[in-house]
Formats: sequence, C-alpha cells, structure tokens
Amino acid sequence: MKARTEYLTLHLPTRRGFVNITPEVRRVVEESGVREGMVLVNAMHISASVFINDDESGLHHDYEVWLERLAPHAPVDQYRHNDTGEDNADAHLKRQVMGREVVVAVTAGQLDFGPWEQIFYGEFDGRRKKRVLVKVIGE
Amino acid sequence: MKARTEYLTLHLPTRRGFVNITPEVRRVVEESGVREGMVLVNAMHISASVFINDDESGLHHDYEVWLERLAPHAPVDQYRHNDTGEDNADAHLKRQVMGREVVVAVTAGQLDFGPWEQIFYGEFDGRRKKRVLVKVIGE
Amino acid sequence: MKARTEYLTLHLPTRRGFVNITPEVRRVVEESGVREGMVLVNAMHISASVFINDDESGLHHDYEVWLERLAPHAPVDQYRHNDTGEDNADAHLKRQVMGREVVVAVTAGQLDFGPWEQIFYGEFDGRRKKRVLVKVIGE
Repeated sequence: MKARTEYLTLHLPTRRGFVNITPEVRRVVEESGVREGMVLVNAMHISASVFINDDESGLHHDYEVWLERLAPHAPVDQYRHNDTGEDNADAHLKRQVMGREVVVAVTAGQLDFGPWEQIFYGEFDGRRKKRVLVKVIGE
Repeated sequence: MKARTEYLTLHLPTRRGFVNITPEVRRVVEESGVREGMVLVNAMHISASVFINDDESGLHHDYEVWLERLAPHAPVDQYRHNDTGEDNADAHLKRQVMGREVVVAVTAGQLDFGPWEQIFYGEFDGRRKKRVLVKVIGE
Repeated sequence: MKARTEYLTLHLPTRRGFVNITPEVRRVVEESGVREGMVLVNAMHISASVFINDDESGLHHDYEVWLERLAPHAPVDQYRHNDTGEDNADAHLKRQVMGREVVVAVTAGQLDFGPWEQIFYGEFDGRRKKRVLVKVIGE
C-alpha cells in the first residue's frame, strides 16, 4: 500500500468564501503514484468545510444567502458558544450543513469524477490561516 | 490490495425521488472479493445525493417535504444560479443537506451494517441519466 | 494491509445528547497497529450521527436548539413516518444535517487532527442501546 499526506494552507481575507482546491488535490494524487485507491480531503478546522459541487459563482452566492438564512451570524448573542468570547457559533453550524470532508475514488491514477464535480474549501470564519488535509491511500 | 470500481446508471422519470441501491452495492462488494476494507458510494452528479437511512415510504415523504421547506424549488428566480438558464439551484442546496457520499465498512466480505441501514440514491433534478460510483478497496 | 473493526456501545438516558468518543477511537487506532491509513467511524443506527466539531457545551446547546428549529420533534403527527407508530421522524432528519460518519486520516500511527477536532456521537432518539462502528485500514 502507498500513502501520501499533504497539508494545504488557506488564508481568506474575508469571513466567508469558497475556494476551488481541485488542482491541488489533483497534484497530490498524481505525486502519490497511487493508481487505485481513495483520497480523503478534509478541513482541519471546525468552522470550515470541504465539499464537492459546481464552480459557478451564482451558485456560490446562493449558498452564502441560504446558509445565512439557515444559521444567521447575527445577532451573535443568540448563541451560547459566543458567550466564550467567540463570535463564530454560526460558522460551526454552517460547516455541518456543508460537511467536513469528501472521499474521492482514485481510478487509473486520476480523480474519478463526474462531469461537474469540483472540490471546494468553504470558509465560514476566515481572516486567519487554516489547513486542509489531503491523504491518498492505495496502490 | 484489491480494488473494484463500478458505475451504476440511474434515470428517474420525476424531478425528485429516492432509490434503494443497496442490492447493487452488495453485489459489487461480493464480486470484488474484498474481505476487509471499505466501499465508497457517491453521486457523480452535483444535484444528487447518496445517503444511508430507512427504507420507509413515510420517511421519504417527510424528507421530500422537509427539503422543499429548507430549499424551495420555486420561485426559481430567487436563485442566482438559475440566471444561467438552469432551474435546479434548489437541487444543489438539497444535495448538501443529504450528502454526496457514504463510506461503508466491509467486514468478512459483507457490508458491515446496522439493523436498518440501507443505501439510497437521492435525485433532486431527474428526468435524465446520472451515475453513481461504487469503489471497493481492501484485501 | 491491516484492518481492525470495533463496535462501541452507546446508551444515552435522554432522547438527545452528544458524547465525545475520541478516546475510544484513538485506542482502536493504536491497537490496530496501522501507521498510515484511514479510520471510518459511523453510527450504525439511522437516528444518530457521528460528526467532528468542538467539545464546548455552549456549542452543543446551540446545535440542540438549531436542529430543533430545522426539524422540530413536535407535533409528532406532522410526519408521515410517525404514522408507523414511531415518534422519531425528526431524529432521521436531524441525523442528515449532522451526518452519519467521519473518515479521519491516520498518519504516523495517530489520528491526524487539527487543533480542535473531536469526534462526537450525536443521539437524536436515545434511551436505548446503539452502536458505533470503528474501522481502521492501512499499513
């Protein structure tokens, strides 16, 4: 069995945003030498997500509006988590809707993707450095 | 390490619906010859889900009503994604709630399931052919 | 390839609650002898979740309030699933928001975690015994 682990660094200037990390994941898969296996991609921070969907800016706007409706940032005092001095309780909720991780099949040395699948980092409490783990296992 | 990859084709006549794909996944696991490992099952399309829950029609009705409340299809012009000519923005939202994929343990050559676990394909923008990837790895 | 499978038993005295199961998962990983691989942790029951987030009681309170707003328990007759004699339809909905499973990288024999990641069992229909599956594969 082969394994390769890499940590991507993300640092968004805004509180929220989406970043397409497919090229980085593809590079790690290629460098791993794995032909048949799986790759795990996960946020290492609990106020961020990794998910797969469309690279279309209108949709990203829709996600932003929708998540803010499901789990509003303000008023921050509606959340007991924010009594600890944080203001990011909503980020922990939004991240559960969008998910922590994706697992993608590696077939013939490539990400085994459908026609529109792209891997995104979803930031819900940015303006600081965070990491994404990429782990490939297989043969 | 052994690996086996298969692509299931789904074509629902309706916009939305749920299909129990457990028998197909079980067959792929058996044909893989893997005794100890994992199987990944994921939608290859970004307006569909794969998830595990109960095979009970009342619950599926409840999911339909609930998802339509969380992310309504109409009016379609409430979503910027639909400015591209699509009318399926709600499908991309619903799929995030229900999830893209499941990973199931394979133990002693079988799906290692709890008493009621069944694998479902969740369609949110049907009336066309879509695919589900099944990948088994292990030994 | 090495593999190890264990089943944790959970029995919460309340309908809903969150339990930090990180120590048990860590023990299984250590006992597996796997240095490089992945560990799958999933609820084996369809009205419960396994997820990764913060071990902070204020946040858990926020999750409880938020999930009850997204998918209220009462009135129980709002759900067709409950026509079967159950009263736990809301639990099947809440579990989809929080997720069934997590997959965590194992690197150098350890859970490859970010600074605050902890693994939780989320119960939405307790007062009875349930199980969580922990499966490690790798080398």
